[in-house]
Amino acid sequence: MRIEVICTGDEVLTGKIVNTNFSYISQKLEDVGLSVQWETTVGDDRESLLLAFTLAGERADAVIVNGGLGPTVDDLSQEIAAKAAGVDLVLNEEWLARMEDFFRRRNRTITPNNRKQAMLPSTAEIIDNPIGTACGFALDIGRARFMFTPGVPRELRRMLEEQIIPRLLAKSGLQTAIYLKRFHSYGLGESHVDALLAGVADLVPDGSVKLGFRAHYPQLETKLTVRGTDMDDVRGKLGPVEQEVRKRLGNFILGEDDATLEGVVLNELTNRQGSLAIVEMFTSGQVAARVGHLPGAEKVVRRGVISRDLAEVFKAVGLDDALPAGELTRETAEAVASAARRQTGATHALAVLIDLDDGPDRIEFGGTICLAIATEDGAASRRSRILGGREWVRLGAVELGLDCLRRHLQGLPVYERTDFEKV
Amino acid sequence: MRIEVICTGDEVLTGKIVNTNFSYISQKLEDVGLSVQWETTVGDDRESLLLAFTLAGERADAVIVNGGLGPTVDDLSQEIAAKAAGVDLVLNEEWLARMEDFFRRRNRTITPNNRKQAMLPSTAEIIDNPIGTACGFALDIGRARFMFTPGVPRELRRMLEEQIIPRLLAKSGLQTAIYLKRFHSYGLGESHVDALLAGVADLVPDGSVKLGFRAHYPQLETKLTVRGTDMDDVRGKLGPVEQEVRKRLGNFILGEDDATLEGVVLNELTNRQGSLAIVEMFTSGQVAARVGHLPGAEKVVRRGVISRDLAEVFKAVGLDDALPAGELTRETAEAVASAARRQTGATHALAVLIDLDDGPDRIEFGGTICLAIATEDGAASRRSRILGGREWVRLGAVELGLDCLRRHLQGLPVYERTDFEKV
Repeated sequence: MRIEVICTGDEVLTGKIVNTNFSYISQKLEDVGLSVQWETTVGDDRESLLLAFTLAGERADAVIVNGGLGPTVDDLSQEIAAKAAGVDLVLNEEWLARMEDFFRRRNRTITPNNRKQAMLPSTAEIIDNPIGTACGFALDIGRARFMFTPGVPRELRRMLEEQIIPRLLAKSGLQTAIYLKRFHSYGLGESHVDALLAGVADLVPDGSVKLGFRAHYPQLETKLTVRGTDMDDVRGKLGPVEQEVRKRLGNFILGEDDATLEGVVLNELTNRQGSLAIVEMFTSGQVAARVGHLPGAEKVVRRGVISRDLAEVFKAVGLDDALPAGELTRETAEAVASAARRQTGATHALAVLIDLDDGPDRIEFGGTICLAIATEDGAASRRSRILGGREWVRLGAVELGLDCLRRHLQGLPVYERTDFEKV
Repeated sequence: MRIEVICTGDEVLTGKIVNTNFSYISQKLEDVGLSVQWETTVGDDRESLLLAFTLAGERADAVIVNGGLGPTVDDLSQEIAAKAAGVDLVLNEEWLARMEDFFRRRNRTITPNNRKQAMLPSTAEIIDNPIGTACGFALDIGRARFMFTPGVPRELRRMLEEQIIPRLLAKSGLQTAIYLKRFHSYGLGESHVDALLAGVADLVPDGSVKLGFRAHYPQLETKLTVRGTDMDDVRGKLGPVEQEVRKRLGNFILGEDDATLEGVVLNELTNRQGSLAIVEMFTSGQVAARVGHLPGAEKVVRRGVISRDLAEVFKAVGLDDALPAGELTRETAEAVASAARRQTGATHALAVLIDLDDGPDRIEFGGTICLAIATEDGAASRRSRILGGREWVRLGAVELGLDCLRRHLQGLPVYERTDFEKV
C-alpha cells in the first residue's frame, strides 16, 4: 500500500517551525509496519494545495494531510479537498453541534470563524477529534483515501493513534494485532547492538518480528515490531525474542518501553526511601536537571552542588583542607561523593568530576571523567575518557553519571566498557 | 522565481531523523528575501528520486536537493540526476584529486566507495564543499537549475551560505546586498512586539526593509531583512529602523545578532572580573547549565546550589536557623542570595526560588517565583507567577532568572511586567 503525507502551512514551509509532525507520523506508521513513500510540504496557498492533493491522489492509496483545519482565512484544507474531489463544501450539522457543546462547556461563545471549521466536503466521513475544534475527515480524491488531521501536535497524535492508524491497517489488510516493544540502552553504538542482536528476529521464523533502532546520542533505542493474528499471538511471538534481547544486551538495558534513565533512577531511590546528593563540574547542573524537576523528585533530590573548580567543589562539600595535587583520580571522586553524602545526610551521593582538555573546541577535544557513588557502605567509582568536542563530552558525562548510578542502584557493576570512551 | 527543495534519504522519510535541514534551508532563504514554494521528501529509492526530480524540473526555476551524495550504495543522487538530465555519469578528475588530497592530509587511504563520490553527471558544475568528501554540484533538469547538497548539516550550512544562496540571488536578479539584523527579547509575546513595532519597516518607504519574527518560548527573535544596492545602501536603510526597534523594545532586548542571554550575562561578569553563585529550586540546575559549561565560565561561575526544599536551601547557604514560615517572599530570596554571596565570596549571587502548585500537571498548573540578585551593595528582587504546566513554568523561570541578572548587570530595572506572567 502506497502512503503519502502532505504537510501544509506557511510556518512549516518557511522553516519557522521544524516539521516534527511529519517525523512523528512516519515513525508511528513504521512502528505498526506501515511505510510512508513520499512527503510533500506546501504553504497556505490554493494552487499549491490543489496540485499537491491531485498529484498524491494519482499516485497513492492513502494520504495523510496535516494542518489547515483551523478557523482562520489561511486554513484552506477543507475548501481545497472539496475542490480536488469535485464535491461541494457543506455545513456539517453534527460537527457544528459538537463545537457548540465544546464552547458551551468552556463558557465561551462560538464565532463565525469557528463555524468555518464545520464546513466539510459533502462526501467527507468525520474523523473524531475529541480534544479540539478542528474536525478530522476522510474522503476519496483520485484513487486515494485522504485523511485530514489538525496541525496541533497533541490533537494530531491522539487522532493518529485512535483513528488514522486503525483505518490504514484495515485498508492495508495487515493483521491488526501489532505491538511495539522498546529497549533503551546507553554505552553501545547502533552497529554494535545490531551485531549483538544478529538473528534474534529469526527466532520467530515467519518474519513477523522486525528489529529496528533509533539512535539519539548518548542513548540508543532498540525496537521490536511484532505482528500477529491477535494479542495472544503477538505475546507468544515476542516472548522468546525479548528474553534473548535482554540476555544479549544485559546490563546495558537501562529501561524498557516508556521508562527513562532519570525515571528509573528516581524510582529506585523512591522505592528504598533513599535520597540523593549530586556534585557536578563541567556538566554544570545537567545531571541534576535531568532528575530534579520530576514529580516526586522533591522527596529524593536532597542537594546538588556545581562548580567548575575542584578547590571550590572541595570547599562546597566541606573538604577544605584536603585538595589533592596532580591528575584527577577515582579516589578524589570517592572522597567528594562521600563528603557530599555526609554533609547532606543523603543515602546516596553521585559525584561527576571532569578534567577538561585545554584549547578551542574541536572534534578531538575530550575530557577525563572520574565519577563516584557513595553510600553508607562505601564508594564505587569509575574513570572514563570521552572525546568528540565540548558538547559531546558534556552529554556523554551526564549519561555516564546517571547510568552508573542506575547500575549501582540495581546491583550491577558500575564499570563496564562502553563504545563511547577512549581507554 | 519558483524554488523547490527535495530532501532525500530513508532516515528522514521514516522519521528516524527530524528534518531540520529543510527548516534551516528555508529560513536562510527567507532571511535573504527568497522563498521556498514546495518541499518533497523521498527515500533512497531510484523510482521516487527520478519522479521527484522530473516533477520539480517541470515546475520550478531552481531546486535544492539535500542528501544522497555519500559513498554508500544507497546514496543515489548523482546517478539519478544524470538520468533525469539525460546525460552520462562520468568520473570527475578534479574532485577525485581533491578527495585524494583530503584523505592524504588525514593519513587515510581512499576507498573504491569514495571514488563513487567523484562520479558526476557530465554536465555538472562543481559546487565546492571545503569540509567534506561529498561533492556538491549544479545542473539543469527540465526547466530548472538543480543544486545538490550533502546531508551532513555542517557541510550543507557552509555550502548554502557560500555557494547556493549567492547563485540563487544571482539567478533571481535580486539586489545582492542583503542583510539580516536580529534582536532577541524575553518577556513580550510575538503579537505584542508586532504591535509595538507597527510601522517601523515603513521608515524606509521603498519596502526594502521587511520585519519578521521567530518565536521560541520563552524568547522571541525579531528580524529585519534589508535589501539594498550595496552594503552602504543597506546600512543607510537599516540605521534609522534598528534605532527605532531598540527604542520601542527598550530593556526587553537581551541581545542582538549572534548574542545569547547566557553569553551576555557571562560577558558582563567577565568584563568586570566578577563571579557568580546560583541557587535554584524547581529549575534544578537548568539556570546553571545555561552558563556553567561555556568557555570562560570556569573563571566566573563560582558555585551552584540546587535543592527542591527551602529548608535544605537555607542549610546549603549557611542560613540554618533562619527559615521563615508562610509564603515564599522576595525577602526570603534576598536573604538566600545574600547568604550565597557571602558563603562563596562571589561578586554576584542569583537565587531563583520557586513555590510550585500542588496536584498533577495541567495547563493551569503554575508556580510562584521569587528571585533575587545580591551584590556587595545589597539585593534586588522580584516576584512573578507563571502558569502553563510544569515545563512551561520551568522554562519561564530559567529565562526570567537569567534575564533579571542581565538587567541588573546592565543597570536596568530588574522588574518590568512581562506577557508571560499572571499578576
